[in-house]
Amino acid sequence: MLLKMEACGICHSDLFISGMEKPPVLPQVLGHEGIGCVESVGEGVASFAKGDRVGVTFLASTCGECELCLSGRERFCARQLNSGYTAPGVLAGFVSVAARHLVRVPAGLNAVEAAPMCCAGWTAYRAVKETAAAPGATIAIFGMGGLGHLAVQFARHVGLRVAAVDVSEEKLALARSVGAEITVTAENAGRTLQKEYGGMDAAVVLTGSAAAAGQAMRSLKRCGTAVLVGMAQGPAELPIVDTVLKGITIRGSFLGTREDLEEVFRLAAAGVIRPHIETHRIDDAPGLFTRLGRGEIAGRAVVSF
Amino acid sequence: MLLKMEACGICHSDLFISGMEKPPVLPQVLGHEGIGCVESVGEGVASFAKGDRVGVTFLASTCGECELCLSGRERFCARQLNSGYTAPGVLAGFVSVAARHLVRVPAGLNAVEAAPMCCAGWTAYRAVKETAAAPGATIAIFGMGGLGHLAVQFARHVGLRVAAVDVSEEKLALARSVGAEITVTAENAGRTLQKEYGGMDAAVVLTGSAAAAGQAMRSLKRCGTAVLVGMAQGPAELPIVDTVLKGITIRGSFLGTREDLEEVFRLAAAGVIRPHIETHRIDDAPGLFTRLGRGEIAGRAVVSF
Amino acid sequence: MLLKMEACGICHSDLFISGMEKPPVLPQVLGHEGIGCVESVGEGVASFAKGDRVGVTFLASTCGECELCLSGRERFCARQLNSGYTAPGVLAGFVSVAARHLVRVPAGLNAVEAAPMCCAGWTAYRAVKETAAAPGATIAIFGMGGLGHLAVQFARHVGLRVAAVDVSEEKLALARSVGAEITVTAENAGRTLQKEYGGMDAAVVLTGSAAAAGQAMRSLKRCGTAVLVGMAQGPAELPIVDTVLKGITIRGSFLGTREDLEEVFRLAAAGVIRPHIETHRIDDAPGLFTRLGRGEIAGRAVVSF
Amino acid sequence: MLLKMEACGICHSDLFISGMEKPPVLPQVLGHEGIGCVESVGEGVASFAKGDRVGVTFLASTCGECELCLSGRERFCARQLNSGYTAPGVLAGFVSVAARHLVRVPAGLNAVEAAPMCCAGWTAYRAVKETAAAPGATIAIFGMGGLGHLAVQFARHVGLRVAAVDVSEEKLALARSVGAEITVTAENAGRTLQKEYGGMDAAVVLTGSAAAAGQAMRSLKRCGTAVLVGMAQGPAELPIVDTVLKGITIRGSFLGTREDLEEVFRLAAAGVIRPHIETHRIDDAPGLFTRLGRGEIAGRAVVSF
Repeated sequence: MLLKMEACGICHSDLFISGMEKPPVLPQVLGHEGIGCVESVGEGVASFAKGDRVGVTFLASTCGECELCLSGRERFCARQLNSGYTAPGVLAGFVSVAARHLVRVPAGLNAVEAAPMCCAGWTAYRAVKETAAAPGATIAIFGMGGLGHLAVQFARHVGLRVAAVDVSEEKLALARSVGAEITVTAENAGRTLQKEYGGMDAAVVLTGSAAAAGQAMRSLKRCGTAVLVGMAQGPAELPIVDTVLKGITIRGSFLGTREDLEEVFRLAAAGVIRPHIETHRIDDAPGLFTRLGRGEIAGRAVVSF
Repeated sequence: MLLKMEACGICHSDLFISGMEKPPVLPQVLGHEGIGCVESVGEGVASFAKGDRVGVTFLASTCGECELCLSGRERFCARQLNSGYTAPGVLAGFVSVAARHLVRVPAGLNAVEAAPMCCAGWTAYRAVKETAAAPGATIAIFGMGGLGHLAVQFARHVGLRVAAVDVSEEKLALARSVGAEITVTAENAGRTLQKEYGGMDAAVVLTGSAAAAGQAMRSLKRCGTAVLVGMAQGPAELPIVDTVLKGITIRGSFLGTREDLEEVFRLAAAGVIRPHIETHRIDDAPGLFTRLGRGEIAGRAVVSF
Repeated sequence: MLLKMEACGICHSDLFISGMEKPPVLPQVLGHEGIGCVESVGEGVASFAKGDRVGVTFLASTCGECELCLSGRERFCARQLNSGYTAPGVLAGFVSVAARHLVRVPAGLNAVEAAPMCCAGWTAYRAVKETAAAPGATIAIFGMGGLGHLAVQFARHVGLRVAAVDVSEEKLALARSVGAEITVTAENAGRTLQKEYGGMDAAVVLTGSAAAAGQAMRSLKRCGTAVLVGMAQGPAELPIVDTVLKGITIRGSFLGTREDLEEVFRLAAAGVIRPHIETHRIDDAPGLFTRLGRGEIAGRAVVSF
Repeated sequence: MLLKMEACGICHSDLFISGMEKPPVLPQVLGHEGIGCVESVGEGVASFAKGDRVGVTFLASTCGECELCLSGRERFCARQLNSGYTAPGVLAGFVSVAARHLVRVPAGLNAVEAAPMCCAGWTAYRAVKETAAAPGATIAIFGMGGLGHLAVQFARHVGLRVAAVDVSEEKLALARSVGAEITVTAENAGRTLQKEYGGMDAAVVLTGSAAAAGQAMRSLKRCGTAVLVGMAQGPAELPIVDTVLKGITIRGSFLGTREDLEEVFRLAAAGVIRPHIETHRIDDAPGLFTRLGRGEIAGRAVVSF
């Protein structure tokens, strides 16, 4: 299926991938948070037609046959290919993609606002759900970037009470503006959330920092759950005695289910979730990666074609 | 309620506690895996009568009012007292205990065989359940001591397939004799279980070793779960990237529920679970602690009064 | 503990109980949705003090020892006593109650608005949770009375999309005003929800009508869940073939957990949930029962002392 | 893919289907519990080769795209075709089937013993799992025919305690021989299981009788779960008040997941599950249907080619 791209968000994973010594696919085209318009469909594709607006994610393809693919966990398929990594990316004018993993963008949601839903929104929503926190529970969200400011809104939407954690005061202000009750600066966040707020029922780590993962585990109440998303290179320190005596759960979360993505699009179209976006032309992309690496982007940068 | 003690198992936690510089209760009486006979009941106790055989566990008392106490998780109550640690132990001729946390020993189970159920059996059973592994799934059990050789039997009882891991060939032989399909020596166990057996659906770490916890995490299949029980002092290394990309869950588990203990007693009485026991007199206790510390006890040592 | 009552809601169960030939407790005092102010505390009560505002529910006492009491399901304890039924009710100036099951009313919530939370709000909230419907799922709520108009708000609060069902146009208008997306008149509601809206992921039946229970089951999508709360005397017709081929779940729900009640109070205090209330003096009570029996009360009638 | 059939079990659903006035597919070939040997594979099929032994189930095909297909619930796909019903059956010498839903039969399991696993075993195993009964819980199994005598063994395998219910003393004897602790004749089974055994944690109804479904619901303890499998034509009477006050769950279950089938084959190959089989030639089929309709077959009748 040929797509004419309309918009593509810039994600931390792009930075990570572009920094690799040997990219798995050459020439390397980045981008896995894209919205495009169907230009033409291949043979046998009945689910989409020319003119449809669709979203492309990091999940370019999966085997469709393994136990994980057949049980709602295809995002963990060992044979998956990933857009902008092991498959061509979508930060491009036109792309050719398989129909199977595309999701339709609902009417009333424009391409620029839809783009961040394809990775940041999708991943953040699933991470909040993975905590299994019941309505009324408290959740600490570590990292108020592209994913974090959406995670705050998702958490509020399902009835949770949010503590936002970041190093940047500007990003904490953004968190408050989208519904965080509590904001805490990153250093000693675990201790602060314990001492001043009685500990958290849940924590989600959206920043690629092993230290943040450690703080998140330390921030939990007895029987609390920490969900890890941000991919720090080094290992985190898992406090065994505390984990045992407090009945703590730690879980990794990656992308989401198809239903999650449909729901995220629906919530964005309904205005329940509002991404904080700065829009750019494709020529600005190199500078955006630089700023992203420095932590200077509050919300999400999106390239509009 | 006054109990005349009949038997008491010797547990690794006793070693840990007796090694503390400042014991929380003095004089320090160890023991939290005891079976006794009711000698006399206090006022208002209707549930037990003189002559009943009961089990005493590490959970001497809980607040009975907090959210955890009221939701089947009293073992995580922040105000709990523990036998042989913050409350008097039961490695003694006679003890005075509260009725609330005692569990009746079913007919047909003698005191010596019942004793190891009160901590080793109870904790191991809950740990296996916490993996939430479905029948037919594979489970690696790290540590073939007092808890481990029972965990193998519990896992088999609920339809799991067991890989046992230990440093000692003698203990691995015990594991095989009680139903382990696979036995693996501890070093590089994670890698071995991955390469030779395709990874495990679940892992339970019953030994107080941070290295074992690390191996356990490494042994898991995608979407697998590791349950930590053994209390290593240092932190374990949590591999963040793998945890995220594979959707791994890690959970601490401590003791069990009352129903777990009743079930463990029932299974032991029915002969489904057979503890491997060496029986001793109280005078042997000091030597038992020494041998336990050296890893020389296969199964459980029980003092019979 | 002696309470000076401030307010008490009028519930359908009161009607049901007052219609019984042989009340289990005489003289019969009705009322199980009461807010009172602590006048004096008994010996050994540390958790409340004179002047505290507390809520009294239908759950007057439980055994505190059975498996259900110890696992967050004390509302199903076989030895429970119920306010205004097997224990004295709280539609009275002063009442003497046990401290154990009282819940503190948060600051900023007045007695009249708090009262309907003690039964209608509590029960409705738990019922919505029992569907286990994920955010974004559709839920049909049958019966837009005291419980229903709160259930709509709870469902919205946890991210569900609501179809309200009732016989009364006036009550459906109330449902729309509190957030129902879809409103359907009761007759053939199952068929309508199937044909026009593709079926529901979940349904909650808050009205004591076996016909409504039948419609609810018919309204479900494949793998949907119906939660029954309203106590119709006759049995409902359970369509076996559909239940099997569609993987339908049906579950009874009664009252809620303590945490549910705390959460319901918190949401009402925060203005997230707004009960629709008509306030009366105690002298009006007989007339209120008559109107309630005729289905003429939209929202909840509360007696203020 | 062309299969040379080796064996096919005779199932109650065949009776039901052959009794229909207008079969959906003509000529009607019955049979959906078949084992065959791959004779030739079609283009693009990489997962099977000539000579492989495979199982064919009632699930001939599914859409592979809907939410249910992608979340481990393809057995509820609205667009499924069923062998011997809306697709050709496998009670035949040679059949042509799609590769996607076939499951490989493990070495060491012969065709006649494998056949009953493809429907009776598969369905019974999933039904037991759907109760979510924890090890040590009690389960009543209604109907000791082809599914029932396997369900008893599966329940035992996952640590449950079994009460078998049937009208036939001969079938109850079979139940005892495969591990049922309690046997109860069908009439008033609910009351008997309540009065004499304190109620059941779970119940599974494998017989197509609305009365049995009613008895099963009545047999449950508070917070118990009844799983319905047998497809009675008329509705069952659902006791609303009991369902609500006792927190009862009722759930329909149909076939199973692919992993369930693999596990069932594995357990049969390992001898953990032993089907009670009478073997026949294809010429006997008409008589087998007659006997099955009269409830005269204990265990499963299998046609061997």
